[in-house]
Amino acid sequence: MELTHIEHIGIAVKSLEEAIPYYENILGLKCYAIEEVADQKVKTAFFKIGQTKIELLESTSPDGTIAGFIEKRGEGIHHIAFATNDVTAALADAEAKGVRLIDKAPRKGAEGLNIAFLHPKSTIGVLTELCEDPNNK
Amino acid sequence: MELTHIEHIGIAVKSLEEAIPYYENILGLKCYAIEEVADQKVKTAFFKIGQTKIELLESTSPDGTIAGFIEKRGEGIHHIAFATNDVTAALADAEAKGVRLIDKAPRKGAEGLNIAFLHPKSTIGVLTELCEDPNNK
Repeated sequence: MELTHIEHIGIAVKSLEEAIPYYENILGLKCYAIEEVADQKVKTAFFKIGQTKIELLESTSPDGTIAGFIEKRGEGIHHIAFATNDVTAALADAEAKGVRLIDKAPRKGAEGLNIAFLHPKSTIGVLTELCEDPNNK
Repeated sequence: MELTHIEHIGIAVKSLEEAIPYYENILGLKCYAIEEVADQKVKTAFFKIGQTKIELLESTSPDGTIAGFIEKRGEGIHHIAFATNDVTAALADAEAKGVRLIDKAPRKGAEGLNIAFLHPKSTIGVLTELCEDPNNK
């Protein structure tokens, strides 16, 4: 597959309200958007640094995957998202090489991106997202 | 502090020999350097993607921090490193704002960078490295 850059790093936090001031006041980044992604049961906050975004993820439900992640491992880095110009082709390529897919086909993620996840069992422990920006095509 | 981009993402792996083929053959990245950092008890492999590097970390000792991380949490994302033009100023700024520092002053890291770590207790669970490239000054 052809990956162009790191689109974002997803970080699980208990509370956006508590985490945003750290990213703004200590790291000097600016939160430019807050968005709820209902089907992932998360509320997200976005910061831009160079080519990459930081996506803070707060669970909106005790049975959401982010709530489960924090319960098991604590707050911290949840996933890496790579940018590609063609998620469908990247998924086909990964599957052909034996990678286990969480998403067999792209779906809509935050910011209108077409996204799909690879399973961390196939990615040496790193939950890996592939993202395609339909506005860049 | 002023951060310019994500310099690298550090990922703990049991074996570079097993991990490098995944990054090369599945993700399509190219390992351009392997380097041992003796005082951190790690062997590192580097890949470039856009502005950012991926740094795979294999412990060279069972009592190294990477070995301890993997024993506790399994393989996966270990830290994020932000690029700044002045690590010393960034550390002073962080400390003045109450952030707990792992390194009170910059030290030499892989690739000749001046680096320092902030403590994850102060960074909402994300082990955070600050990096300054002395060749870019």
